[in-house]
Amino acid sequence: MFQGFDAATAPSDGPPRLARLRTALNQSGLDGFLVPRTDAHQGEYVAPSDERLSWLTGFTGSAGFCAVLPHIAAVFIDGRYTVQVRSQIDTAHFTPVPWPATQLGAWLVENMPNGGFVGFDPWLHTRSEIQKLTDATQAANITLSPFANMIDAIWDDRPAPPKGQITVHPLEFAGEPHDQKISRLANNLTRGDTDHAVITLPENIAWLLNIRGSDIVRNPVPHVFAVLNADATVDLFVDPDKLTDKVLQHLGTKVHTHPIGAFAPLLKSLDGTVLMDEGSAPFALIAPLSNATLIWGRDPCVFAKARKNPAELSGMRAAHLRDAVAMVKFLCWLDREAPKGTLTEIDAVTALEGFRRANTKLRDISFETIAGSGPNGAIVHYRVNTDTNRTVTPGELLLVDSGGQYLDGTTDITRTVATGPVGALEKRCFTKVLQGMIAVSRARWPEGLAGRDLDALARFALWTAGMDYDHGTGHGVGAYLSVHEGPQGLSRRSVVPLEPGMVVSNEPGYYREGAFGIRIENLVAVEHAPPLPDQDIRSMLSFETLTFVPIDLRLVDNDLLSGEERVWLNTYHTQVRDQLLPALGPDEQAWLQAATVAL
Amino acid sequence: MFQGFDAATAPSDGPPRLARLRTALNQSGLDGFLVPRTDAHQGEYVAPSDERLSWLTGFTGSAGFCAVLPHIAAVFIDGRYTVQVRSQIDTAHFTPVPWPATQLGAWLVENMPNGGFVGFDPWLHTRSEIQKLTDATQAANITLSPFANMIDAIWDDRPAPPKGQITVHPLEFAGEPHDQKISRLANNLTRGDTDHAVITLPENIAWLLNIRGSDIVRNPVPHVFAVLNADATVDLFVDPDKLTDKVLQHLGTKVHTHPIGAFAPLLKSLDGTVLMDEGSAPFALIAPLSNATLIWGRDPCVFAKARKNPAELSGMRAAHLRDAVAMVKFLCWLDREAPKGTLTEIDAVTALEGFRRANTKLRDISFETIAGSGPNGAIVHYRVNTDTNRTVTPGELLLVDSGGQYLDGTTDITRTVATGPVGALEKRCFTKVLQGMIAVSRARWPEGLAGRDLDALARFALWTAGMDYDHGTGHGVGAYLSVHEGPQGLSRRSVVPLEPGMVVSNEPGYYREGAFGIRIENLVAVEHAPPLPDQDIRSMLSFETLTFVPIDLRLVDNDLLSGEERVWLNTYHTQVRDQLLPALGPDEQAWLQAATVAL
Repeated sequence: MFQGFDAATAPSDGPPRLARLRTALNQSGLDGFLVPRTDAHQGEYVAPSDERLSWLTGFTGSAGFCAVLPHIAAVFIDGRYTVQVRSQIDTAHFTPVPWPATQLGAWLVENMPNGGFVGFDPWLHTRSEIQKLTDATQAANITLSPFANMIDAIWDDRPAPPKGQITVHPLEFAGEPHDQKISRLANNLTRGDTDHAVITLPENIAWLLNIRGSDIVRNPVPHVFAVLNADATVDLFVDPDKLTDKVLQHLGTKVHTHPIGAFAPLLKSLDGTVLMDEGSAPFALIAPLSNATLIWGRDPCVFAKARKNPAELSGMRAAHLRDAVAMVKFLCWLDREAPKGTLTEIDAVTALEGFRRANTKLRDISFETIAGSGPNGAIVHYRVNTDTNRTVTPGELLLVDSGGQYLDGTTDITRTVATGPVGALEKRCFTKVLQGMIAVSRARWPEGLAGRDLDALARFALWTAGMDYDHGTGHGVGAYLSVHEGPQGLSRRSVVPLEPGMVVSNEPGYYREGAFGIRIENLVAVEHAPPLPDQDIRSMLSFETLTFVPIDLRLVDNDLLSGEERVWLNTYHTQVRDQLLPALGPDEQAWLQAATVAL
Repeated sequence: MFQGFDAATAPSDGPPRLARLRTALNQSGLDGFLVPRTDAHQGEYVAPSDERLSWLTGFTGSAGFCAVLPHIAAVFIDGRYTVQVRSQIDTAHFTPVPWPATQLGAWLVENMPNGGFVGFDPWLHTRSEIQKLTDATQAANITLSPFANMIDAIWDDRPAPPKGQITVHPLEFAGEPHDQKISRLANNLTRGDTDHAVITLPENIAWLLNIRGSDIVRNPVPHVFAVLNADATVDLFVDPDKLTDKVLQHLGTKVHTHPIGAFAPLLKSLDGTVLMDEGSAPFALIAPLSNATLIWGRDPCVFAKARKNPAELSGMRAAHLRDAVAMVKFLCWLDREAPKGTLTEIDAVTALEGFRRANTKLRDISFETIAGSGPNGAIVHYRVNTDTNRTVTPGELLLVDSGGQYLDGTTDITRTVATGPVGALEKRCFTKVLQGMIAVSRARWPEGLAGRDLDALARFALWTAGMDYDHGTGHGVGAYLSVHEGPQGLSRRSVVPLEPGMVVSNEPGYYREGAFGIRIENLVAVEHAPPLPDQDIRSMLSFETLTFVPIDLRLVDNDLLSGEERVWLNTYHTQVRDQLLPALGPDEQAWLQAATVAL
């Protein structure tokens, strides 16, 4: 399904819906209600039936939440969305609140009467969220009350939940039979004296069972729940309409399928030790597990999935080269079209998707393409629609962040290009961003460090110029799974040690509100660092670059680069050329030769 | 008191003492006993009467601990001491254990029988230490038992506790009257509904009351305890022999002095809410406070002391310039003496201390000077003694880490110098260390970041060469107080945000065991970053350099430096020259001119 460009929401829709919600609130006896972005699976993409936050407020960002009180409705958004939110919500009725600077708990204490009651849908919040909120509001005697979802009660034309088909993920790409994964993780459960693990994240279940789904766009996961048992069986809760005989045959005798409605009853029947993931399991699961001994820990799939196996890494490499061909065709096309002065952001998005879809191996794009020209580039997660669509004036920067879903891997790449001669400030800022991106690419570090320990490397060049960016440097990426995957990452929030096989993005940026935006993004995989002369005996890790697409040299201020940075850039461009030339036609070959000339 | 060079301990003393301790252990019914380095004040320097760890084991490092079991005695040491410990202990009887890689709790579980009892002196361990240990050994049913100190019971000629005189710290250097500090912190207690705060760190009490002490060498603090009360009074527990009329008059009517023995009885009498510092208050204080409501938090002086006021910062600047003159005289002397081939490490230490003491404003050196030549330089906290003293062969590296205590400030500086033409590897490694040190010096960062978030900047150049160092990049430093002061720092353990006024060291290094050691150290103070053209509106912090002493250009590989690094180095050397030339004689002026020539 090609990306659409209709403005999905209108700011004017929000206020009447808010009024209805407040009427319901008034009738309920509650003093407030929480409307999160997430669904019961805590995913970044949600089905149309779960788009409660955007339905209520108009805000369509990938993260955020609304707290509705009788006199104020706050939309909490992070640094990526501070600009976007103001164009999507009616600020006379909704108040944007910068998060995490302002925490929900502190905000509730400030804005609610002592002893107030706040309702929340227990399927949409995790235990740790509610725990944290309870702690933070305790002093003001605020009570958090699980409650039937109030949006669902007033949302008359709410779409039906999806019924996407489930498919088998071929072993050639998965690299390990699902029986083996189940046994491996079940052994870990046994070693930890745990009888069952509840798994609610669809990407983890998809990874564990070597299946994929189609319930939501862009993210090939099925909306299912599962219980992994220490006897190496799995109970899978799934709408039977999503299953085919082929899938059932693949799942085999160790995986017992049940309708979704059987999930809570099965939990009620569990009486051993049950592991739940504090950060992802819905609060609603706690009550049914009253006969079990609950252990709050990490979903056992999380680390196993994050450390990609050789087949997955090799698939990721192949997918990235395939995707790079589409990107180069797009960049070559862009250099031809942009100078004409008629190109719009939507034209760019459509063309790029066309180049990607020309390869029949593409299953979907991996997220809605971000194509922001000029000031729109400064909106970190900008999604163009017919209202915001701009014609790209030659000489502006165009930021394009996009990716593809292939059976063998998921890609995510950002390039910022000059659509004609640009100013000195743009070049200087681009070069600073590039220096950060190169620093991460070149990094080696002793084993045991987390993303937080490397994040500064991506920012140093910007910092010394008095600049920074309000997002993490990188997120984990799945293998034909979610384009945002934990627990690994490159940011101040990433405190788990990086391990060989983990894939992360390396995407520093710089955003000048009202003027331009810059981001450069490659995906990289953690590897054991290759040996160096004179090195210590200590064991170090480094990054293998997966993305091979030219970086716009017209935006590089060569004088700002150190010798080592220049060597990296030239070496990278040589690799890009060597890898991609054979797959291109004569025009594109000529373009690539010029685009990768040594500095 | 000039630094001494007798080997303080002999490895052969340890085994018979260990045998006596085991006899005592056997009689006590315990299965093990813990011997930490610290005293009841958790300080880095301890009085001779508290040197239990070195008395037992021979290990004299500034951090470490011994766990004695019937069949094994482990000496836990961190990366700074892995080399040194092997030369100081008898490894047939004591086993060095790398810490924190091996945690004490895990080690006890591994080496003790299930259900064993481990004794510890409750005055020498904090609550959080014992808590952590209890948690870690719970599975093996190990019990931690407070017990009278077993070393004290067998240490026949144990020295008496010190009786150092207390003096008044002049307001001109303290910058804020102690009455005002007391009121300010007492107000914070009141706001937190806290009635009393127990303060056991001598440097915090010295800071709060504007007094200094002389109970231990190098660190001008008194061994005292205090209770800060919400009514803006302080109870001070101190040996009366340490007080003079002048000090009593300075302390005034709001500070009530009591003999040390009155400390526990007074705690018993407290019945309100009492704040204790989990990380520094001795475990022994918990029992007496049975009538009070305990709140575990941070000693209220910690942050107030860490954020130096303008008078303290101006004192630190003056002390650093004064100290730099002594350092330059030393470096000039060294360049004259080293080529002769007869210079020993002890000669270097004695000469440097002489140059410092030539200025009558020096109160003491701030720690035992580290002067390690050739392979001794690779012992991170090497202290030369008559046994280890080496003659410096021309062409070797000499690492000198030293500092001075002045009424107006504390200094800490490391320079590594070439004593003749050195090899390419030494130059390359020195330059990588320098690049890290320059990166920290040049850093700007958005407010809110901690030392952990900046640590990688100091290591990146080394990392990319496959190298690293096993210590933090920097520690906090006091103002005429301890040369190691928390909570600020530049290391993976430093997670408190850096704030304007905090002083830290910036000291990356590189150590090649058996060959050479490199460290370059300046002190820097956190400041609001000066404005830059094109910067964002965001508020950023940066470091003001306090140390102005040449960096040995003979060790710099100019080709490895980036343009920005070269600019920093040349600018720094210009500042060094401008600030120090007027204070030097003609020979030293000529030396300084040559040593600070632009690259």
